[in-house]
Amino acid sequence: MTTAGGEQAEREQELTGRVVASFEGAPDERLKQVMQSLTRHLHAFLREVRLTEHEWQQGIEFLTAAGHITDDRRQEFVLLSDVLGASMQTVAINNEAYGDATEATVFGPFFVQDAPQAELGADIAGGARGEPCWVSGTVSDAAGNPLPGARIEVWEADADGFYDVQYDDHRTAARAALVADGQGRYSFWGVTPTPYPIPDDGPVGAMLAAVGRSPMRASHLHFMVSSPGCRTLVTNIFVRGDELLDRDSVFGVKESLVKDFQRLGPDDPTPDGRLTSDTWTRVEFDIVLAPGEQ
Amino acid sequence: MTTAGGEQAEREQELTGRVVASFEGAPDERLKQVMQSLTRHLHAFLREVRLTEHEWQQGIEFLTAAGHITDDRRQEFVLLSDVLGASMQTVAINNEAYGDATEATVFGPFFVQDAPQAELGADIAGGARGEPCWVSGTVSDAAGNPLPGARIEVWEADADGFYDVQYDDHRTAARAALVADGQGRYSFWGVTPTPYPIPDDGPVGAMLAAVGRSPMRASHLHFMVSSPGCRTLVTNIFVRGDELLDRDSVFGVKESLVKDFQRLGPDDPTPDGRLTSDTWTRVEFDIVLAPGEQ
Repeated sequence: MTTAGGEQAEREQELTGRVVASFEGAPDERLKQVMQSLTRHLHAFLREVRLTEHEWQQGIEFLTAAGHITDDRRQEFVLLSDVLGASMQTVAINNEAYGDATEATVFGPFFVQDAPQAELGADIAGGARGEPCWVSGTVSDAAGNPLPGARIEVWEADADGFYDVQYDDHRTAARAALVADGQGRYSFWGVTPTPYPIPDDGPVGAMLAAVGRSPMRASHLHFMVSSPGCRTLVTNIFVRGDELLDRDSVFGVKESLVKDFQRLGPDDPTPDGRLTSDTWTRVEFDIVLAPGEQ
Repeated sequence: MTTAGGEQAEREQELTGRVVASFEGAPDERLKQVMQSLTRHLHAFLREVRLTEHEWQQGIEFLTAAGHITDDRRQEFVLLSDVLGASMQTVAINNEAYGDATEATVFGPFFVQDAPQAELGADIAGGARGEPCWVSGTVSDAAGNPLPGARIEVWEADADGFYDVQYDDHRTAARAALVADGQGRYSFWGVTPTPYPIPDDGPVGAMLAAVGRSPMRASHLHFMVSSPGCRTLVTNIFVRGDELLDRDSVFGVKESLVKDFQRLGPDDPTPDGRLTSDTWTRVEFDIVLAPGEQ
């Protein structure tokens, strides 16, 4: 790395100072703080790597391509944030560790408001291809008290790696909202999570390929859990043994969220007497909510 | 500013480390260096300001809007880089101070390859509205030797604040390529530079408004000067007395590039005997090129 000598370093430092000062008059204190910090860190990056003018041009072209592929169904800037770990870092910052509270992880782009309500124990697959999976557990607060009536929203990809909203036919599948019972318990039939790639036919995919990184996400099942007086939890559970756990493309995996998915066969009795002619799995996930605003 | 306590800080640091490590296998050493540094500084920014999830969402929306307004004639990401001083910092990094060599400044989006060749002393305005301005000077190397045959490309906005390429009629105006004479001298008639705003009807303009910054650029005239064995110089000259000198929206002004534009009238003799019925100006700009690759 080239290091900038005396007069050169002074010129660069002076420029950064002028840009930082240009935000001094911002009427919104928070916006001023964010823009000044962004400026300092952006300039520190440019100065550290001694960015060439050609590389700057490549950066402009990358952002332009990301902008042009982005539409109502494709969000390349979210993908970029995801693969740079910026999404997970934002999650970490906004979900500070609290006792035994369940850890949060990436939200992802596939959540849908007002998903259909399902009864406890229902099959939420809705025709999604995949191996049946019985998911059950409890919702409680950080003091260990059950949270009756807690709202549990779940969504996941099918065995082909696609969420319902990625199909053109407006289906709803592998997605539901549940309400915990009087003891804070919940359960449902979904599908066993399988790995899939993030959309990799755009500039983010090209960047991952150039640096030798895989676009694959570790197998996971999404949860959003809320209850009055508690911090709403957005998280995933992951499948123990999945070979992608240590190289999830969006850095969403946390050890505490890796669960045992017990592998079972047609001869094993199901929790609700459902008959299956194939293999199935079951997993338990007990959820602990931190105190806070819903 | 919230500071993150022990376990929290550890989680955040560990995540940054994992993202940095994900680039370890990049086959291109330089790309690895750039991505790892970008990751470190991006995460340091997020952690320092404790970015909220709502602010993250606003950032995604800002980049999306910038992508959608960008086309062949409008480059919002270049504007963004410009107003954050990132363009000027890249210029500073790639044009290290060298003796008396003329300082570089922003290139801007309005340069055109293969501009029409003009004779020394010619009027390059080509119908552009504006007060006539006689520009003359010499091109020499850092040892003071004149550079005969040096190539001088010049371009500027008209009195309405627009470059020729911003009009729909394919005009060429206030733009030319000149060749220095046997003593390294050059001269031409252009128009006296006037201030103009960068395009401010997009997200970058909205950001400038939100922080109370003006979109105005200080009045300037663009130069690109090249000669074999010398570092190609991209620079602007600015007008002494312009009230925007200390708040140029893209941080392009350097004291050494601020020149005296002498104000003259119809009775003052012009350098080449041209008759004018109005006011005109003249400026001298002696250019010194650093040694280097062309």
